[in-house]
Amino acid sequence: MANDESLSRAHHPILHPGTRELTEGGFSREEVALANRNSGTLLEMLRHDVTPPGLHYLLIHFDVPYVPSAADWALDIGGLVERPLKLTLDELKRCPQRTLCVTLECAGNGRAAITPRSPSQPWHTEAVGTAEWTGTPLKALLERAGMVAGARDVVFHASDRGFDCGVEHDYARSLTPEQALGDDVLLAWAMNGAALLPQHGFPLRLLVPGWYGMASVKWLNRIEVIDRQFDGFQQVGTYMYRKTADEQGVPVTTMRVRSLMVPPGIPDWYTRRRLIEPGRVELFGRAWSGQGVPIAKVEVAAAGHWREARLDPVPDRYAWRGCHFEWHATPGEHELMCRATDAKGETQPIEQRFDRGGFGNNAVHRVQVTVR
Amino acid sequence: MANDESLSRAHHPILHPGTRELTEGGFSREEVALANRNSGTLLEMLRHDVTPPGLHYLLIHFDVPYVPSAADWALDIGGLVERPLKLTLDELKRCPQRTLCVTLECAGNGRAAITPRSPSQPWHTEAVGTAEWTGTPLKALLERAGMVAGARDVVFHASDRGFDCGVEHDYARSLTPEQALGDDVLLAWAMNGAALLPQHGFPLRLLVPGWYGMASVKWLNRIEVIDRQFDGFQQVGTYMYRKTADEQGVPVTTMRVRSLMVPPGIPDWYTRRRLIEPGRVELFGRAWSGQGVPIAKVEVAAAGHWREARLDPVPDRYAWRGCHFEWHATPGEHELMCRATDAKGETQPIEQRFDRGGFGNNAVHRVQVTVR
Repeated sequence: MANDESLSRAHHPILHPGTRELTEGGFSREEVALANRNSGTLLEMLRHDVTPPGLHYLLIHFDVPYVPSAADWALDIGGLVERPLKLTLDELKRCPQRTLCVTLECAGNGRAAITPRSPSQPWHTEAVGTAEWTGTPLKALLERAGMVAGARDVVFHASDRGFDCGVEHDYARSLTPEQALGDDVLLAWAMNGAALLPQHGFPLRLLVPGWYGMASVKWLNRIEVIDRQFDGFQQVGTYMYRKTADEQGVPVTTMRVRSLMVPPGIPDWYTRRRLIEPGRVELFGRAWSGQGVPIAKVEVAAAGHWREARLDPVPDRYAWRGCHFEWHATPGEHELMCRATDAKGETQPIEQRFDRGGFGNNAVHRVQVTVR
Repeated sequence: MANDESLSRAHHPILHPGTRELTEGGFSREEVALANRNSGTLLEMLRHDVTPPGLHYLLIHFDVPYVPSAADWALDIGGLVERPLKLTLDELKRCPQRTLCVTLECAGNGRAAITPRSPSQPWHTEAVGTAEWTGTPLKALLERAGMVAGARDVVFHASDRGFDCGVEHDYARSLTPEQALGDDVLLAWAMNGAALLPQHGFPLRLLVPGWYGMASVKWLNRIEVIDRQFDGFQQVGTYMYRKTADEQGVPVTTMRVRSLMVPPGIPDWYTRRRLIEPGRVELFGRAWSGQGVPIAKVEVAAAGHWREARLDPVPDRYAWRGCHFEWHATPGEHELMCRATDAKGETQPIEQRFDRGGFGNNAVHRVQVTVR
C-alpha cells in the first residue's frame, strides 16, 4: 500500500467496469450487489429524531478495514505544517470535545430515478440518517500543527483501498484550509454515545456537517496539508456534477434541500405500494438542507394541491426538522408528494435534474397510495 | 387491525404484484428497492465471531413497528392452554434466562442466482449474521400455561402488518408443539447484551436456533395454541420449496449447510472484482449448518482442485465455525470456491438447485479474483 501517494495512476484494465450507461429497462447484477452491500435507512424510521443504530445509511466504497483495536492506531497530521503531530485515540479523546446532531445524506441519493443511469449504487430515496457525533474540532488541531504559507488544500487520507474506473487508490478527500478551519468540522470517535462501529469508520472519521456524506471520510488515518489542489480520484474523478462525460464539472459539496415522508398505511411486501383506510391520516416527514441552513417551509400535495405542513420546533443546526400534515383520505388511487424550502429560498424541484453521475437528485418525494 | 384473525382472505387486487417471473436480463425497480431496504452483511465482516451491530442481515417484510417504549406492551399466551398468560417485558426478564450465540440466515439467501427468479428480495450471498441472543426459554412458559390435549400448532403472531400476493395479514408463523418445546427456543429481548433494536424486533422476538430466519418472528406479541395446522400466509403461502406453481411444496425449516469466505485482496467499487498480489494469501471463511449440526469439513478450490481448510475450534452449537486456507496465488484470473460438509454428511452443491421461490440456495461460494 503506497503510503506517501494515495493515488496510483497505474490503471488496471481488467478491473475497469467501463462507462456503459444503464437505462430504465433493468438494473444490473452489480447494481443489486451494491444495493445489498450498502444500507439505506427505513423510511418508517424517520419518526426517530436520532436514527437507531444499524439504520443510518451506509455507503462503503471498498471494504471496511478490519481494525480489532485502536491500540496500534494513530492519526498523523503533516505536510505543510510547522509542527507535525501524531496522536493516539486516547490523546484525541483528551482534547476538547463537542457533540453535534447531524443529518448526513449520500450525494447519490435518488440516483436510481435518473435516466440514463450511472453504474453505481442505485439509491432510491433512503440514503440518509441522523446521529449524534462526538469528537474534537479539527480547527484546534490544525492551529496546533500550524499550517504554513502556501497551504492550498487539506487532504484526509483513509485506510480503505480499492479501484474505481481502473484507478487504484486509498479513499481520500480534501477541503480548502478555509473549509477545514470551519468551527463545526469534527474528528469524530463516537456515534450516539458509543465508539464508532467498524462500518462507520472506527477508530476515527472526519465529520463535515452540512455536506453530503463523501466529505466525512471514514477510517481516517492521515491529514496532509499540500501546496496544490488535491487531484485524488474521489475529489476530481467522481463527486462532480456533470451533464456530459467531457465537461470538467462542478464539485459536489453541501446537501441540497430535501424532505422525505413516512409512507402512511401498510405496505405490500414486493411493490411497497401502500394501502390506507379512508378518513383522517396523520402524515409525518423530515426535511433538511445543507450548510446548516434552516428549513423554512414544507409543503405536502395530494391531488396536486400544495398545502403547508406544520413544522416541529427548530432543531439543532445540522439536524433534520420534523413536520406534520393532516390529510383527509378518500377512496381511490393517490400520489402524495412533499417538498421543502430552506431559509435561502431553495426549493426541491418537481422533476429531477439530469446528472451524469446521479448526484444531488433532490426532487420531491412521491408516495403512491391506495385508499380502501 | 384484526386481533383474533391475523389473516384476512379478502384479496385486494390493486396490491397484487402478480406472479411474473424475472429473468437474468435485468432486475426490476422493486427488487432494487427491496435490496436498498433490507440489509446484507458485508463479507469482510465474517472475520468477527459476532457480527457487529448494524451488520447482521435484516429481512423486513412490512414496516418496522414504531414502539418507543415497552411500557404498554405485554405478551399474550392463549388459545388451547389451561392458564392463559399475559406477561410484561419486566416479568419476562425475571424469568430464567439464557444467552445463545446463533448464526441466522435468510431462507432466500442466494435467490438472485436462480433463474427464472422469484420477484422478492434479490439476495446474492450476504443474508447472514451471528449474534448473542438473550431471552427466556419458551418451553418453561408453555409448560406454565399448560397446553391441553388436541393442541396441534403453536402460532407466533407479530405486530407488523401488510400484504403479500394480495393477502392482508399480520406476520405470523407456527411451530408444532414438539418444535416449540425444544430446549433452545427462546423469547429474546436482548441482542449482543443490549435491548433489541427496533429493526430486530423490539421489544420481543422469537428465536429458533438452527432454522432459517423466517421462524424467528420479530415484534412478537401473541402466542396462540390451536387445534389445527396453521394456514397463515407466511406458513403456507410462502417459505415452501416448490419447483412449480401448482405443487403443494415442502416447508422451509432448518438451514442447509453453507460456507462463505472473506473476499481476499482489494475490490473494484462497481464490479466488486478482487485484485490481489501474487504469493501467499491467507483465506478466511465461516461455515454453518442447520439444527446445530456441527461442521465437519470445509474445502477450498482454486483452479478446480479441492483441498481441506483448517477449522477453528468447535464453536457454540448454533454459531458459525471459522476456517483458514493458505493459497499460493499466481498471476492471472482465478475463481476461488469454498464448500462445507456437516457431521450428517450434507455437502454444498456445486450448482444451485432450482426453487421457484428462490429458497435454500446453498451452492458453493465463488469469488472471482485477478492476481496482479
